[in-house]
Amino acid sequence: MHTVKAKVAYRGDAFSGFARQPDQATVQGSIEQALELLYQRPVETTCAGRTDAGVHARGQVISFDLSNDERGVRGLPTLERSLNALIDDHIAVSELVEVSEGFSARFDAKAREYRYFIYPGKTRPVLCHDLVWHVKKELDVQAMEEAASYLIGEHDFKSFCLAASAVGKPTCRRVHEISFKTEQLMGEDVLVIIVIGNAFLHSMVRTIVGTLVEVGVGRREPAWVQQVLEARDRSAAGENAPACGLVFWQVFYE
Amino acid sequence: MHTVKAKVAYRGDAFSGFARQPDQATVQGSIEQALELLYQRPVETTCAGRTDAGVHARGQVISFDLSNDERGVRGLPTLERSLNALIDDHIAVSELVEVSEGFSARFDAKAREYRYFIYPGKTRPVLCHDLVWHVKKELDVQAMEEAASYLIGEHDFKSFCLAASAVGKPTCRRVHEISFKTEQLMGEDVLVIIVIGNAFLHSMVRTIVGTLVEVGVGRREPAWVQQVLEARDRSAAGENAPACGLVFWQVFYE
Repeated sequence: MHTVKAKVAYRGDAFSGFARQPDQATVQGSIEQALELLYQRPVETTCAGRTDAGVHARGQVISFDLSNDERGVRGLPTLERSLNALIDDHIAVSELVEVSEGFSARFDAKAREYRYFIYPGKTRPVLCHDLVWHVKKELDVQAMEEAASYLIGEHDFKSFCLAASAVGKPTCRRVHEISFKTEQLMGEDVLVIIVIGNAFLHSMVRTIVGTLVEVGVGRREPAWVQQVLEARDRSAAGENAPACGLVFWQVFYE
Repeated sequence: MHTVKAKVAYRGDAFSGFARQPDQATVQGSIEQALELLYQRPVETTCAGRTDAGVHARGQVISFDLSNDERGVRGLPTLERSLNALIDDHIAVSELVEVSEGFSARFDAKAREYRYFIYPGKTRPVLCHDLVWHVKKELDVQAMEEAASYLIGEHDFKSFCLAASAVGKPTCRRVHEISFKTEQLMGEDVLVIIVIGNAFLHSMVRTIVGTLVEVGVGRREPAWVQQVLEARDRSAAGENAPACGLVFWQVFYE
């Protein structure tokens, strides 16, 4: 058996999320349909992190297994071209490599990085409206940095998890880094929040960002984030930040 | 009478171009409809440069006149808010200022800057596909720079003008600068071609870019651009680069 790893980018707004669902346009569904066409059998893919409807990816990673015969029938550059020709236009597959047998894009991932893009200011960001969250109020980034510091390290992030997904499941995660930088996007300054952790709960990054923005606009003090953590209750945190500003940026393996 | 100047940004793919046309979604149509609602009479706007269907703008400039009464009825910040609330979501109006009476966004413009975004490489640029031209071949930027040097200065750009628009009209223009830089767009390197000139003919920037890319991919030598100029015939030049990669960046006034 041969295991193949690949990088996957996609526009979140074209899909009902990453994970395959019957009768819905999904990233996994489109890729697996293409693989099935190529190998004439269902090929299951594993991903580093399922993303919700509307969430973009630049560096999602998937893995799947091929038999000796299947691996022999075409080289990986040919497979990459064929896959990209067959999948939805809003997905791009790249960097196909063979990895050690049994590698899992999910279980072998050491850390995941998400980036959240915020456009602050009163004028509509028309050129990149579908890649950012337009927050019309001024943001106090220093207060947001202080607020973020409470989240670094290993914590029970139950307050930052979609309530239904948290039932009966472990909700401890380790956040390695939450950093902030300003960069230009089509000539406009955007605030980028970089969140790196070992793994993330359902809607965790969007809830973290929504909570930090509560602090950034001055509705809450930075120390409030500590109370949110301790509450272990989703209703204690801020609103989910919109999906369109979130990009699954990259995955780290050993 | 009072003359108002404003900056206008828009997503080109939402409109059949800037200029008002009956029964078409246009940028000018949307703005003038909003002004008519606010002032209960047709208000004509002038723009620095009409853009074609699909071409984006970050810094288009418009001007329009208001009577003493109209100027008095609401302040410019209120007008800006009202306009943005009434116009199409893919347009943003900002930086409204009163300028000297009779100012024209078109005739008083000293220079215009366009930026063209090219994504080179084999993988589909899914995150910013609607803001770039995806050129799959490698580009020799040094050859493109040499090719561009033939276009600097005052020339008859008839070969770079949509043929039908050139009939019986002056086709001399002055190009001040064509420069190249690589910048990151959502984490990917894109080539930005900055074109500044006193004024531009219909589809001139897209034809310049299409012609330079012919050189960049190695199909033509840089000196070929000189022949294209001298031909004074649109069919001598390269194909129009796609509209989606072009952004009307800014306008310079005295």
